[in-house]
Amino acid sequence: MIEMEPVGYVRAARQEPSDDFWGGAAATIVLAEGFEADALAGIEEFSHVEIVYCFHRVDADKVVRHGRRPRGNPLWAEVGIFAQRGKDRPNRIGTTITRIVRREGRTLAVAELDAIDGTPVLDLKPVMREFLPRESVRQPPWATDLMRDYWSTTK
Amino acid sequence: MIEMEPVGYVRAARQEPSDDFWGGAAATIVLAEGFEADALAGIEEFSHVEIVYCFHRVDADKVVRHGRRPRGNPLWAEVGIFAQRGKDRPNRIGTTITRIVRREGRTLAVAELDAIDGTPVLDLKPVMREFLPRESVRQPPWATDLMRDYWSTTK
Repeated sequence: MIEMEPVGYVRAARQEPSDDFWGGAAATIVLAEGFEADALAGIEEFSHVEIVYCFHRVDADKVVRHGRRPRGNPLWAEVGIFAQRGKDRPNRIGTTITRIVRREGRTLAVAELDAIDGTPVLDLKPVMREFLPRESVRQPPWATDLMRDYWSTTK
Repeated sequence: MIEMEPVGYVRAARQEPSDDFWGGAAATIVLAEGFEADALAGIEEFSHVEIVYCFHRVDADKVVRHGRRPRGNPLWAEVGIFAQRGKDRPNRIGTTITRIVRREGRTLAVAELDAIDGTPVLDLKPVMREFLPRESVRQPPWATDLMRDYWSTTK
């Protein structure tokens, strides 16, 4: 077993998990007790940050270890849990790249984040071009369908 | 505290951590006991995978919780540990996007991965275009300098 401690928490308007419409979901990350502002110093020189967090509201008995249809949608074929990004996954880790808006002391404001209020943050990493895909990206049609309204702002 | 269990392990030629020259460092991820091939089914329809892993060789007393010069290089100013991607970080999490070469049963071959042999893998996520930066990416000059030989193949 590997033990982790939250390095911060998400402060956001959304209180309940939902699949779509995360566009414009501004959020603030506040460092946990024991971390000072110096841990974030210089992050504002980057345009984007990768946030690694825990889907803490997923119960152990909900975790999928095999395959399933993404979102349970009968239109899509069953794929492995590691071939999708859903939250009911082993270790319950989420990772999202978002634009940095502003840093103030121990808080970091980001443009939009698909995590609810109170989400424990496990790591923050600056996005460097060299860590983005170095070749063109291909994905199956179901993934494009699924993501259609993910970052939409209107319901 | 949040507990994690490895979902797989890296098999690679490199046995010791090093800063640069990860270009062409092919690797294979083998799922851990308790995971079947169906957990990976369909991942081969994506070109890229994001691998979340643990820098397991970093001792607790090496972890930096404040700031430091990246790689200890005197040419670069001190920045917070969350403004750099070095391994001596709280929770010791690494995330890398790499190209998928082939899946065979419970193993996934990837084109290049900056993790040594035996590294515990915490999660695998398919890369979807919609989770890449949706705006242009900006980074400070030190980051570009630091990454110059990261993915180089020659020493």
